[in-house]
Amino acid sequence: MSTPTESPSTPATDDDPSIDTAVADTSELSEAERGLLVDNLRYVLDGRWRATRDEVRRRANRADLLPDPSRTLEQARARILEEMRELSDEGFAAAGFGADHGGTGDVGASITAIEMLGYADLSLMVKAGVQWGLFGGAVENLGTARHHEKYVADTISLDLLGCFAMTETGHGSNVQELETTATYDAATKEFVIHSPTPSARKDYIGGAAEHARMASVFAQLITAGPGQEPESYGVHCFVVPIRDADGNDLPGVTTSDCGYKGGLPGVDNGRIMFDEVRIPKDNLLNRYADVEDDGTYSSPIENPNRRFFTMLGTLIRGRITVAATAGAASRKALAIATRYGLVRRQFDAPGDEEEIVILDYLGHQRKLLPLIAKSYAIAFAQNELTEELHEVQSDTPAESPDGSADDSKAGRQRELEANAAGLKAYATWHASHAINVAREACGGAGYLDENQISIIRGDIDVFTTFEGDNTVLTQLIAKEVLSAYADDVQGLSAGGWVRFIASMARDVVVEKTAARQVVQTLLESSDEDTEKSALTNRGTQLRLFRNREDHLVRTCAQRLRRATNDDNDAFEVFNNAQDHLLKVGQARTERIVLEAFVQAINDCDSRAAAEVLGKVCDLFVYSALEADLGWFMMHRHISVERAKAIRRGVNELCQDLRPHAATLVDAFGIPEELMGAPMIDNH
Amino acid sequence: MSTPTESPSTPATDDDPSIDTAVADTSELSEAERGLLVDNLRYVLDGRWRATRDEVRRRANRADLLPDPSRTLEQARARILEEMRELSDEGFAAAGFGADHGGTGDVGASITAIEMLGYADLSLMVKAGVQWGLFGGAVENLGTARHHEKYVADTISLDLLGCFAMTETGHGSNVQELETTATYDAATKEFVIHSPTPSARKDYIGGAAEHARMASVFAQLITAGPGQEPESYGVHCFVVPIRDADGNDLPGVTTSDCGYKGGLPGVDNGRIMFDEVRIPKDNLLNRYADVEDDGTYSSPIENPNRRFFTMLGTLIRGRITVAATAGAASRKALAIATRYGLVRRQFDAPGDEEEIVILDYLGHQRKLLPLIAKSYAIAFAQNELTEELHEVQSDTPAESPDGSADDSKAGRQRELEANAAGLKAYATWHASHAINVAREACGGAGYLDENQISIIRGDIDVFTTFEGDNTVLTQLIAKEVLSAYADDVQGLSAGGWVRFIASMARDVVVEKTAARQVVQTLLESSDEDTEKSALTNRGTQLRLFRNREDHLVRTCAQRLRRATNDDNDAFEVFNNAQDHLLKVGQARTERIVLEAFVQAINDCDSRAAAEVLGKVCDLFVYSALEADLGWFMMHRHISVERAKAIRRGVNELCQDLRPHAATLVDAFGIPEELMGAPMIDNH
Repeated sequence: MSTPTESPSTPATDDDPSIDTAVADTSELSEAERGLLVDNLRYVLDGRWRATRDEVRRRANRADLLPDPSRTLEQARARILEEMRELSDEGFAAAGFGADHGGTGDVGASITAIEMLGYADLSLMVKAGVQWGLFGGAVENLGTARHHEKYVADTISLDLLGCFAMTETGHGSNVQELETTATYDAATKEFVIHSPTPSARKDYIGGAAEHARMASVFAQLITAGPGQEPESYGVHCFVVPIRDADGNDLPGVTTSDCGYKGGLPGVDNGRIMFDEVRIPKDNLLNRYADVEDDGTYSSPIENPNRRFFTMLGTLIRGRITVAATAGAASRKALAIATRYGLVRRQFDAPGDEEEIVILDYLGHQRKLLPLIAKSYAIAFAQNELTEELHEVQSDTPAESPDGSADDSKAGRQRELEANAAGLKAYATWHASHAINVAREACGGAGYLDENQISIIRGDIDVFTTFEGDNTVLTQLIAKEVLSAYADDVQGLSAGGWVRFIASMARDVVVEKTAARQVVQTLLESSDEDTEKSALTNRGTQLRLFRNREDHLVRTCAQRLRRATNDDNDAFEVFNNAQDHLLKVGQARTERIVLEAFVQAINDCDSRAAAEVLGKVCDLFVYSALEADLGWFMMHRHISVERAKAIRRGVNELCQDLRPHAATLVDAFGIPEELMGAPMIDNH
Repeated sequence: MSTPTESPSTPATDDDPSIDTAVADTSELSEAERGLLVDNLRYVLDGRWRATRDEVRRRANRADLLPDPSRTLEQARARILEEMRELSDEGFAAAGFGADHGGTGDVGASITAIEMLGYADLSLMVKAGVQWGLFGGAVENLGTARHHEKYVADTISLDLLGCFAMTETGHGSNVQELETTATYDAATKEFVIHSPTPSARKDYIGGAAEHARMASVFAQLITAGPGQEPESYGVHCFVVPIRDADGNDLPGVTTSDCGYKGGLPGVDNGRIMFDEVRIPKDNLLNRYADVEDDGTYSSPIENPNRRFFTMLGTLIRGRITVAATAGAASRKALAIATRYGLVRRQFDAPGDEEEIVILDYLGHQRKLLPLIAKSYAIAFAQNELTEELHEVQSDTPAESPDGSADDSKAGRQRELEANAAGLKAYATWHASHAINVAREACGGAGYLDENQISIIRGDIDVFTTFEGDNTVLTQLIAKEVLSAYADDVQGLSAGGWVRFIASMARDVVVEKTAARQVVQTLLESSDEDTEKSALTNRGTQLRLFRNREDHLVRTCAQRLRRATNDDNDAFEVFNNAQDHLLKVGQARTERIVLEAFVQAINDCDSRAAAEVLGKVCDLFVYSALEADLGWFMMHRHISVERAKAIRRGVNELCQDLRPHAATLVDAFGIPEELMGAPMIDNH
């Protein structure tokens, strides 16, 4: 292993040289030096809320927090509730709520803390996310002072257990078409919550099976002003009591249990049917819309679509937390598999006494190391996303919710939502894949629950579905990019949206986001013709990711413009381009992820850490390019020769990073008590 | 949707025309016509042992056979044992054993029947596979008359419950290095079975935790002839009683429980340690080797490696059964997801009252239909493999086990083993992936155990590991192909094998297997230059798959020849080429799979079924090419223009096959009572 010769982002003159800028072999580092490297890498990975991470690390470093597969469903649920009460007693939940409602108002800390629970038990993370993030978040963000006063303190303390009743049996992705109704009755000043059909049943609702006493219910608000016909104003959110203090369904409410699932046994998912359940008018979470006593509807946001999506937008926190936790779960599974790969030996090396450590096989390195590199990349993008959410939500005073605000703020919110959608899909698909690979990399031992990965595998599966189906989310970001975040595009049907795109000026679609400073500098240090700069050049790497995105956006827009031809059915035009559209969303997210990685390296103070991160970033880039070589070659963004260099490069980078494998996963900073695995410990 | 214009395998003159040879829309078929099409497709899919399939279908069409996630581990295990007893009472197991041992001697029927159990409960399939396939198979294939007489009838009737104790904590893939010893004591005419180290512990053994009374134990046979020093003769198999009639460990035996796993709760996996356990000499399964009373060792196979691999080779049945069952599990999950995709609606189509059936989205079609096509392909390859095993094993008289036999028979056995290894990896990776995708395609409903896919997902996970780690198996087939099944290559270390390859004559490596008749005819109907024949031409498709394999074999051999240079470490040469080697194995298997599909179409009597199968085969080919486009373009086997046509082709084939989706999965012939899923049934 050679010593470093050039920074990974220094432009090289030689075209695609064999990657020989190996970082120092960890085995050459003293234990103290390696410890420092781990600390420095962890510092970068931890991001702005590193203090929160350390706090949770300290408190959660207890093996009794790990899932115990011998528990019955009832026991698992009871145990998680018990752990929730412990968390609550420690003031865990305060960060998620405004200082004037009994919280400490630190959005970023709140998300980070919930994410960290994922290292212990994903059921605990989901249960905490439902209670404080979703139910609490709905009250906090869609409610007003009267709700904050009445509910927030009890939500933090768990004196009020809530659930988030959005999804219905018939509608998950298409939330605007929920069937539950909330009809205003001016005579009694009440809303009547009702499930008119079997498919209107609230479904998969965490907490609804057993623990929740109250639900934030999403329903079509129907009201009539004086002398008017009743009218539907779209989906709004209502606080609806569902159980009494003894846990019995309240009159008109019928809950049931979703029963056994692919994982997350500690979360009591259930169903709710409403039969003309009456609630006081005040239970409408009325930050964005209200109803007068006489039934008159009013909202500061006139356009119903914009109103709906503004309300949904405030709930983005849940999606970001889910993405963050998927990152944590991937890191834990990969860390366990990597440590196993470093102690497990199989088959003989000639001349050696012992069999070969399996992580010394190129095939095994190729399984794990690119996934570790991608996990680093995703962690950096996640940190940026959390920070942006924190800024946007801390910045928005609760008293000016008119949604019209200034355009730049609205644009920032829309971009945040698009990025959150894209990263949620990207990170959870990665998690699902990485955890699968990690399990398989541990052979039969990986299948035993005592070694944890099999449990994580079951728990993580639904992350690709909840808080937004990944395919729908990937499409969402693509639609936003293609329509350049145009107003009032949200909520259009597929055909309607295509007609909108088709009508847009050509240049709007291809307008580029201005690059951040560090990216701009690197771009300028590389040749515009990517084949003329070395592939080890970070600027070249950025260009390849940017060019792919631009190419896809431009060509997708061209395809969609066929809808201007009256002979073409708009939905068919949309549908025929759906694979293209999904690829736009993926390419866009991967570009954002790379840029976050580049930023993190740029901001890293430790030279040794920056050097290792540079290699890790190279491996992320090379393996991402390798995974999409067909596209890059088909569209002549990468030559045949360079394609071969990429395949070789992945191999070389794996071998270069092999000595750092333990360091890279130690830097995740997963509490050691949560890393227990007899297959490693008993070796 | 147009009517068929040309058979899919007719050579076209136009280069890569848009695929417009749509098969008849199912919606245009009468219910009777559709039923006939389903029956004809099922007839082809069912293969030679269709009578066995129908028999199991009839008997297993009972919802009470489905896994019940509410069972505790103990209940799940007890229930599976109960189901095993039912099977045994019905004579289920007889087919797996020779007629002269109390069986009916129908190897193919035996494998097919166990595979079909996978439609009900994978725990049942595994438990049956362990008892009758592995334990019973070891006795049947490695034992001689005295063992057959003593054990077979009781194994069939479950009066004797057995387990298969091969894998140890320290050795799974590298079976030759097992540490358990069986030392012959001439004084007492006993073998002493012993676990000398903690890593010698037998591990993950199905049945060892609770039910098994006896184990077929693989151990290093150590003996000394008169006046000689004790010597190790390598791994042999012994029948060792481990529990008494009350289920207590026998003296010297310590069993323990592997506990909770990622799935398969009905299988009681456990561990066994032996402390100088004495068994009569007769308990050596002595078909391939024996020890005289005085300790003299003898074997008709002199070479220890060849002896070991001959013994292992007779156990190939387990691997083939696992591959077959992975196919069944994929088909079931895809069938459930497809049926859901046909009733689930989401988002509005302009002008329509109802929302759009999700399988009408191209994105959803692209998720499921290529996996269905691949499942067809795998099913046909599996049928051929089962048939070949049946022929080879039915053909080998038990009394001539000298392994030297005639070369053609030995070659046939070696090729069978290589194909079994390749298909096991290919089919189980497909299963793991397809079931994951199927779960996700059903959203939150897919995560509920009541809809089955989440359970199948947990159960199938370990299929990529047991009966041979997929990566190791893929490498095995590659090594066999590269060394042209040369004698005595098995058992060489990586470095030793590379040195062997390097010394081989160049032309041995690239020697092609003669193509079967139907393939040869199709090859001849297409241009040697694949770019000159249409991609819809089956001959062109076959050429692309064959050319990829040949190219990979040739270039891999070239890389490995670097080991002839003395400066190169042979292991390093091997390791640096490991990704290349794995790709050889995958390409080879995929070619074999395609050729089996082509054969099945050729043999299909129904024109309507053959036409649909042609389309399905096209989709299999196009999506396989799409998944590997990077390689095909990098090595100039596919042009940029053709690459684009392939992407478009997948879309068009998905849309063409969309009307047949229900037909394609109905043809799997999964008993309806085993297909229950409230998300579909309650729609």
